[in-house]
Formats: sequence, C-alpha cells, structure tokens
Amino acid sequence: MLVDGIGLLATGDPQRGAGPLGTIPDATVVIDGGRVAWVGPSRSLPEAAGEDRLDVGGRCVLPGFVDAHTHLLFGGERAEEFAARLAGHPYTAGGIRDTVAATRAATDDELRRSAGRLATEALRGGTTTLEVKSGYGLTVDDERRLLEVAAGLETPGLPRVHRTFLGAHVVPPEYAGRADDYVTLVCDAMLDACAPLAAWCDVFCEQGAFDTEQSRAVLYAGKEHGLGLRIHANQLGRGPGARLAAELGATSADHLTHLTDDDIAALAGAGVVATLLPAAEFCTGSPPAPARRLLDAGATVALASDCNPGTSYTTSMALVVALACRTLGMTPDEAVHAATAGGAAALGLDDVGRVVPGHHADLLVLNAPSPVHLAYRPGVPLTWAVLRAGAEAWRAP
Amino acid sequence: MLVDGIGLLATGDPQRGAGPLGTIPDATVVIDGGRVAWVGPSRSLPEAAGEDRLDVGGRCVLPGFVDAHTHLLFGGERAEEFAARLAGHPYTAGGIRDTVAATRAATDDELRRSAGRLATEALRGGTTTLEVKSGYGLTVDDERRLLEVAAGLETPGLPRVHRTFLGAHVVPPEYAGRADDYVTLVCDAMLDACAPLAAWCDVFCEQGAFDTEQSRAVLYAGKEHGLGLRIHANQLGRGPGARLAAELGATSADHLTHLTDDDIAALAGAGVVATLLPAAEFCTGSPPAPARRLLDAGATVALASDCNPGTSYTTSMALVVALACRTLGMTPDEAVHAATAGGAAALGLDDVGRVVPGHHADLLVLNAPSPVHLAYRPGVPLTWAVLRAGAEAWRAP
Repeated sequence: MLVDGIGLLATGDPQRGAGPLGTIPDATVVIDGGRVAWVGPSRSLPEAAGEDRLDVGGRCVLPGFVDAHTHLLFGGERAEEFAARLAGHPYTAGGIRDTVAATRAATDDELRRSAGRLATEALRGGTTTLEVKSGYGLTVDDERRLLEVAAGLETPGLPRVHRTFLGAHVVPPEYAGRADDYVTLVCDAMLDACAPLAAWCDVFCEQGAFDTEQSRAVLYAGKEHGLGLRIHANQLGRGPGARLAAELGATSADHLTHLTDDDIAALAGAGVVATLLPAAEFCTGSPPAPARRLLDAGATVALASDCNPGTSYTTSMALVVALACRTLGMTPDEAVHAATAGGAAALGLDDVGRVVPGHHADLLVLNAPSPVHLAYRPGVPLTWAVLRAGAEAWRAP
Repeated sequence: MLVDGIGLLATGDPQRGAGPLGTIPDATVVIDGGRVAWVGPSRSLPEAAGEDRLDVGGRCVLPGFVDAHTHLLFGGERAEEFAARLAGHPYTAGGIRDTVAATRAATDDELRRSAGRLATEALRGGTTTLEVKSGYGLTVDDERRLLEVAAGLETPGLPRVHRTFLGAHVVPPEYAGRADDYVTLVCDAMLDACAPLAAWCDVFCEQGAFDTEQSRAVLYAGKEHGLGLRIHANQLGRGPGARLAAELGATSADHLTHLTDDDIAALAGAGVVATLLPAAEFCTGSPPAPARRLLDAGATVALASDCNPGTSYTTSMALVVALACRTLGMTPDEAVHAATAGGAAALGLDDVGRVVPGHHADLLVLNAPSPVHLAYRPGVPLTWAVLRAGAEAWRAP
C-alpha cells in the first residue's frame, strides 16, 4: 500500500532528507508486509507501487513515538498526593508504596482495563511503541502478574509493548529495614519468575530506594537472567546511578535530572542512552535535566513520558516534546528525534523510530504541516491518524 | 432533561457544595429550555424532573471553560518565528505585523475556515464560551471583516462567541512613524465601522504598541461607542497598563506578567478582573504572572488561552489550568474556578461559568473522577462530552 499526499515526511534519517529529521516535502511511503518498502519524493515513486492508498491530504507524517519509559501497570490513582505537592509538599519515593498497596488489591481485570485504557490513550496520542515496567507489585506473584498483564496488551490495535522487570522499584513495607533481604528476593526468586516475561531489568537507584551495591546486584542478576539493563538514575539528587549505568553498559539511564560533568562524560563515553522525562520534572516542579550538556557531549538523548500515577500521569509524547523545547532547551527537531529514533535507541531497537525501508510502518499523521507544531501547539490533540505495521490503528473523528 | 450519574459535580458556587468549586458528589443536573433548572444530590432529585436523560457513568462534570482572551481570526502561521524564539531570539510585538500581512491577504473563506477549525478545537477541549478579538486587519475594512467572520462563528455547535474590537493591536506598517494618526483612525472611522459588531474595545498598551495617552484615547472612544473595556497590560515589562485599567474601570486587564504592588492594589481596588495567560508565558519563556499576589490582594483572577499564532498557539484550557498550577502557584480548585467563573467575570457575564439554576446549561463532562485531573493529567485529552445549552455539542469517540 501507499501513504501519499504527505506534505512533509520526517524520516528521522538525515541521509534521506533535510535537517536532523531528514525531511522530504511532497513525499510518499510505500508499505509492504507491514514494513516500509520505499520512501521518497512522490515524483520519484517507482512504478507498480500498488493501488491501495491512504491520501493524508498534505499533512505531515513522522515516525510513531517510541515511549521508552512508562509505568502503566498499577491500581488506584494519587490525585490527592498530586494536589498536596502543588501545595508545597516535596516529592519522595514514598508515594510509590500507596500505589503498591492499591495494585496488590486490584484484580487482574482491573489492572488489564486500566493499562488498556492508558495504552489506548498513548496510541491515540501517536505512540506506536511503548516500554512498560512492572514495579508496583513487589512480590514474586504480583510482579509476574503485572508482566502477564503487559503481555496481554500486545494486540495490533495498541502500541508495540516492550516489557521491563522493575522488582527493585522500592523496598516494600513488609521488608522495611531489611532491604538486602528484599534485594536477594529480587535477584533470585523474583527474577526466576519474571525474566521469562520481560526483555529488560531496571532498578531505582536513589536515596530512599536502592543504593549502589544493591542496584549493582539487581542489574548483575538481571543480566545473568538474560535481560538488557536500564536504570532510574539521578532523579532526586546527584548520586551513583549514571556512573553505574556506564560501568555496567546499561542500554539506557533514565531521569538524569541531576548530573555532574563526570556523569555526563561517563554516559556519553559508554554509549548509554540518556532518557529524559521532562513531564515528570514538570509535574514535580523539579529542575530540568541538562539536555543541552548531554547533547553537546555527544550522548544519544531519548524523551519519554514516565507515565505513572504519582509524578507524571500523562501518556502524551506531544506534551513531552513541547516541554523538552521549553524547559530542556532542545530544538523541535532534536525533541522529535529524541521521542522517536531516540526512544528506539533506548530500547535497543533498529526497526522502529524512523520511516526508512525495513522499519515497521508505524506512522503518525499530524493534523499540522510540520513536526514543529508538536511544540508550537501545546496541549492540542494533533493526531490525525496512527498506523501500526501499515494498518490504521486510529483515525481522529 | 437530566444529566445524571455524575460522580462529582463542580458547580462553581461554594454555597452549593464543598470547597471553592462547590462540589457535590453523586449529583444530577436538571435542564429546562437550555438553562440549568436544578442541581443537587441525586437522592434529592425533585419528582417529575423529566425522562430524557444523559447518564455520564460516574464521571466528573464542571462548567464549560470560559476562555476570555483569544485572537482566533488570522491568516497564516508563525511556526518559524516560534522555532527561532526557541533558539534564543526574544519576543517583541513585531511578529504581529507578519500575521497582519497574511490576514489582509486571506480571503473571507480562508479566515472562516481557520477560525472555525480553532473554535471547533476549543469546543472539543471543553470551551463553551470564547472571547474573540479582531486586531490582525488594522484597516477599517479588514477589522470589520474580521468581526463579521467572528459573528459567523455563532452557531450551536461551537462555543458562544463574544467579540472584541482590537484595532489598536499594533501600529500597522503604513502608519509607521504616525502612530497618533493611526489612533485617530481607530477612534473615529474604525470604531464607527466596528462598534456595531463588537461588545468590547481592547488596546495593546505596551512599549512597541501604544503608550498611555494613546491607549486612554482608544478606550475612551470605545466607551463612547458603547463598548465595554479590556486591555493588554504589563505583558513585556512594567508599565502603565494595569493602572490605566483601574483608572478607566476596565472589566479586565490581561497578561499582567510584570506588576508592582501598587499595580496589584489598583486592580484589586477597582474590581478589574486579572486575566492571566500562562500558556503565552510558557510559549515565550516569560516569567510567570504574580497570580498568588493577585489572589492574596483579593483580585478576581481569570485564566485564558491567548490563542494566537505568535505567542500561544493553543486552544487548550486544560493545558492552561495545568500550567497555572505548575507555573503560577494556583491550586487546581483556584485554576478551574479562574478558567470558568473567572472567565465569565472577565466578560461581565452572569449566566455562564457556573452550574447553577438560571445559567446556560454549558457543561464539560470529563473522562476523569475530578477536576484535579485537568492538572494531574497534563496533555491528555480528557473531554468525554461537551453540552452547550443542554444539547450535546461534542462527544469523544
């Protein structure tokens, strides 16, 4: 099939078009078997490219967002904590425990409905690939249950789902004062049960969560269980997380609100993707992550939503792009690239995040003439259509 | 008809329920002839209240937003200027002139389509009353033409429209160096032509636009032509606008990013509504307006979108509420009140902005359990349905 009438195509590949997003005006995308088969100016379209076509009426097309950091699996909400924080109460990791209690109390059906609603919302916002973490169960059974719910999200009408085991999110109340015992549980029985259901192992390395040695133990165990590594690092203050990510060759280090120059050099040197979460900083009133310093140091930057009920209850990658431009000092091109190709890098994927031959035909069609409008028109739902594997998964009314 | 199954109703009247928004759980709204006839707990519903009913399934209902400051009538866009500003170029009022040129060049049909698209977008975002300014024509014919286009927006499927004459937006290029001559044109021929099409007269009182004497002359002339008064004041720096609003008894002073304590006392003392535009501050990287100092001084605060193609190209009052909480230090209750009842006060209206008997039955049904979610879930389209005069004007798919 063809997607044509594209006023501006952002391929995400600077070799294929203008600027950092590799844009091509008046473009066509040829799709075969759910994958991109050809992209280029419509006037150069190969003959016999097929008859089935979607004319997008001059709109802009870009890769679907790759949201590489979400916590979609939970029970309950924390609107009251949010309102209290607006009234001046500081954020600590403590609120996570409230969600743990609500998640354990939720039925499988409730968890499925809640996660499905958020994944649907994400898709309608243009997200076609979604990382989803466990981490609100914190027992062997509950963590496994969350990853099973995540597995159930894998349907053609929702974003592609990549599952992360985050048993080491916080120390659950029943292990208060016995953090090392909990780490042992995570590294042994919990990983044994959960690793078959996940591609990634994550840990919250932060004061109030897990220290350097505990985090290192969890990530080593994850690696032994065949999982790739990611880490919540340097969110609430300076700390060892970023350097640990570099030491262990983690694929992604996430948050990174508080970084020293040495941290930045370590991340860039080790090729760790810096996944920034400006919506979490916005919602908690935190300072902005040093995006410019990371980019200037040569680090690959990804942008993600951090969707979770405590500190960033949004699935909107468009808002994340707008915030990255206004609060992180990124240009619209940099932000859109970080929210697509950057997210793919953060998940170690080479078949999403760009509109180039061989990639999944996961496309976002905007009701706008260029990707700049994601930042230029904040808060406005700009999705016109979302294609996953070349099939229309959502069309705005 | 009835709207029932309301999990939480925010009436906007503290006498009718809890907290500043006067919330009632498990509520019903009775509508008769397009107006609210009764509100209260469902268990107290009067008999014979009618059979036609809309069950909102436990969702939250609040008054539709009253967006009291927009510039919806224009040709072209300024995405490039926006991107340049992100790269460090400062905002001056100069970009307005680019939009003036594009607006003059646009056909009536183009202006109608563009304004209709934005008004539709606003409605879907929950706005049921919309102030719309002229100001990108700046000739007698073009200003009149814009107000005629605005008059054409008044259809049941769009927000209620209140029209403002803003001939004194900037000095147009053909009057460069002859600002006083342009002010004379505005005060005489332009107001003669436009006043019959508008309810309000506005002026941009700012360095680079109009000074105190020019602004006073325009507002006097507007008053003589039977119009209510509003003013763009203290946006780019401290200046005379706020005090002029107090002196002339303007209904609303808008922007107010830069205020002295004397300005605040003058506004509060004169009963001028302070209409704050945090999306414009967000988009231009300006400091936040002193909302808390205004509220503490007893001023009535309204929140509006400032939708315009230069400095705030959004219709999303939900984003405005979220920004007001995060950047202006307002509580969610204060922000929602300012975006509904506050907007009504800024437009001198006593029949919109609350869900109380006698008011128009203009309701926003959220896909959420409380109005806090407008701030708690930034960037997420939360509209489930919008009623105007008791009729469903939009239902989300």
